[in-house]
Amino acid sequence: MNGSLIVDAMQYNKPERARFEEWRTGGLGCVHVTVAIWESARETLSKIGEWNRLFERNDDLIALATSAEDVERIAGSNRTAVIFGFQDTSPLEDDLELVEIFHRLGVRIVQLTYNVQNRVASGCWEDDGGLSKFFGRNVVREMNRLGMLIDLSHCNERTCLDTVEYSECPVAVTHANPAEFVGREIELSRRNKSTELIKRLADRGGVIGLSMYPKIMRGGSNCSLDTFLDMIAWTVDLAGIDAIGFGSDYYTGWPVSEIKWWRAGRWARESAVPITGFSEWPVWFRSPSDFGRLVDGLEQRGFASGDIAKIAGENWLRLFRKTFVPATVGSTGDTSHPKPA
Amino acid sequence: MNGSLIVDAMQYNKPERARFEEWRTGGLGCVHVTVAIWESARETLSKIGEWNRLFERNDDLIALATSAEDVERIAGSNRTAVIFGFQDTSPLEDDLELVEIFHRLGVRIVQLTYNVQNRVASGCWEDDGGLSKFFGRNVVREMNRLGMLIDLSHCNERTCLDTVEYSECPVAVTHANPAEFVGREIELSRRNKSTELIKRLADRGGVIGLSMYPKIMRGGSNCSLDTFLDMIAWTVDLAGIDAIGFGSDYYTGWPVSEIKWWRAGRWARESAVPITGFSEWPVWFRSPSDFGRLVDGLEQRGFASGDIAKIAGENWLRLFRKTFVPATVGSTGDTSHPKPA
Repeated sequence: MNGSLIVDAMQYNKPERARFEEWRTGGLGCVHVTVAIWESARETLSKIGEWNRLFERNDDLIALATSAEDVERIAGSNRTAVIFGFQDTSPLEDDLELVEIFHRLGVRIVQLTYNVQNRVASGCWEDDGGLSKFFGRNVVREMNRLGMLIDLSHCNERTCLDTVEYSECPVAVTHANPAEFVGREIELSRRNKSTELIKRLADRGGVIGLSMYPKIMRGGSNCSLDTFLDMIAWTVDLAGIDAIGFGSDYYTGWPVSEIKWWRAGRWARESAVPITGFSEWPVWFRSPSDFGRLVDGLEQRGFASGDIAKIAGENWLRLFRKTFVPATVGSTGDTSHPKPA
Repeated sequence: MNGSLIVDAMQYNKPERARFEEWRTGGLGCVHVTVAIWESARETLSKIGEWNRLFERNDDLIALATSAEDVERIAGSNRTAVIFGFQDTSPLEDDLELVEIFHRLGVRIVQLTYNVQNRVASGCWEDDGGLSKFFGRNVVREMNRLGMLIDLSHCNERTCLDTVEYSECPVAVTHANPAEFVGREIELSRRNKSTELIKRLADRGGVIGLSMYPKIMRGGSNCSLDTFLDMIAWTVDLAGIDAIGFGSDYYTGWPVSEIKWWRAGRWARESAVPITGFSEWPVWFRSPSDFGRLVDGLEQRGFASGDIAKIAGENWLRLFRKTFVPATVGSTGDTSHPKPA
C-alpha cells in the first residue's frame, strides 16, 4: 500500500472508538459520516452534540474537518478527519436559514433527499419529480453561497440532472456505482447512476464515490476484487481519472431494527423495499481496515501511482477545496443563477 | 464626549437597521443583544438565523463578535460589535450538549434564568431556590469550559451568591442597579442587587452593568442624570472602579403585547406583575443615541479619564477577554470545581 491520502466519502456506522481504530488500520485520512437522515433540526443538534463528545474523548484518532486544509492537517497528524453530512434535508425542515446554522455547526455535505420525495428533491424510489423549483433551488444556491457540497447519491435521475445543471459549483455522488456496469438485477439497483449522469457530473468537475456496498455491486456479496477493479477502470474510461473516488457506504454497529428507520423513517409503517438484514461484505472488504487491499489492487492492476492517489483521495480533496469555501459575490458570470440578496 | 470604547451590556430591541444607526450615533462599540428568552432550541435557531441575515444586510454598521479581539476589531472599524446572549436557559432545554452547540453558533453570554425558577436556577420573583445542584452546576461548568460569560441579572439572591462562588470564572450582572442606593419603592425593585452580592461579584473579578431602565432606577422615569451619576459614584465606592459598566436594558420597536411574552412566556396565562406599558425613558437617555451624554456627565462630575474609559467599556472588555476563552485543563488549582470528563 502506497502513502496516498485515502478518503472514504460515505460511512454510516454507529459512532464509537472501535470504528476510529479501524480507520487508522485502514489508513483512512478522511471519512464523510452521516449525522442525520430523518432527524428534525432539534434532533440533529443532539446528534452533533454526541459527535462533539466523541471528538473530545478520541482526539488521538479523529478530529472534525470543515475545510480541505483541515483534512490535510488532520490526516497529516496520523488521525482521521471527519466530515459531517446529512443524507436527507430533514434537518432543514422548511427553513432556508437552517442551511447556514448547520454550516456553522460544521456540516459540509448534504444529500438532497434519501430515496423518496421531500421539500427539496425527489429520490431514487420515486417515479417522478426533480429538484423543487422554490425550496430546492434556494437550498442549492444557499449551499453554493456558504461553501457546502451537494450530494446526489440517493436522488433520482431527474434530480441529479437538474442539480448538476443548476448548481454553480461541482456536485458529488458520494456513494453509488454506474448502473450500466453493474446491471439492473441487483437488489437496490435504482440507487446506481446512469452513464449520462456520470458524464455530466464529471464534465462539471464532480466526483463519484464507487461503493463496496453489496446491494449495489455487480454480483452482490460475491463481487470479486477483480470485478470491483474492472468497475473502477470502466468508470475512469467513461468519466476520466479526475472524477472517481471511493464511497464505501460501510455501516456497522447498528441493530437490524435500525434499517427500518433508514428505509421508512416516520413516513411509513413498513419499509417499501424488503428488509433482508445486513449484507455480508465481500471477503476483500470486511471493514474499512481493508482499504489498503483496495489500493494494493489498483497497483497490481497497473494503475500509475499518480492515478491511484487521485482515486484514493486527491479527487475528493480537490472537490472539497473547490466547494468548502464561500462563494465570492460576482465570482461567476452566470447571471441565470442569482445569489440571494 | 471622549474617545472611549462604549459597551452597552444589555439591549433587547426588535432588531432592525434604525437601531444600528442609533448605536453609531451614540458611539457604541459593542452591544450585548438578546436572541432568546423562552424560545426552545429550535426556535432559537431561527432567531439566530434572522440575525445572520441582519449581519449580511447591515455589514456597514454591525458585525458579530465572539471574542474580545473581535469587539476591538469591529469597534475599531467604526461599527458596533454585537454579542449574542440568552436571558434564560430555555434554549438549552434539558440537554447539556446544547451549551456547546449554541457556543458554536456564536452565543457568548447566558443569563441562568429570567425572573422565575427553571432547571438551572431561580429568579428574582421566586421566594426560594438557587443554582440547581445537577443541571445548574453542570451548565456553569460547561460555560466555564467553553468560554461563556454567566449573567445573573434576573436571578434571585441565592442563585447569584451560589454562582459567584461556584463559577471558576468571574461572572456578570449585565443590567441591574444596587438595591441599597435605589430603594425598595421602585416598581421592579426585586431585580436590583444587594450590597453583599455586588461586593462578592467584584471581589471575584465580575462586573455590574448599571441600568437606565426607569423601573429599576431611583425616581423611575424622573431619575435625573445627576442621580444616575450619584449611583455610579456610590457603586464605585462600594465595589471599586473595575467592577462598574453600563447595561441600559434599553428596548424599543416591540408591540406592547411583547411584554406579556417576556413576563409570562408559555408558563402562565397572565403576567404575575402588572403590565403597565412601556416605560418613558429619562430625558437624558431617550435612546442609545444619548450614550455620549452619559460619558459627558461623568467628565463633568470630575471622573478621571482613565476611570471613565473603564466604566464606559474597558471593564466589560476585560471581562470578555477573561471569560470568552476556553478553560485550559489544569489551569486552576481549585479542585473543588472539577472539569467535566
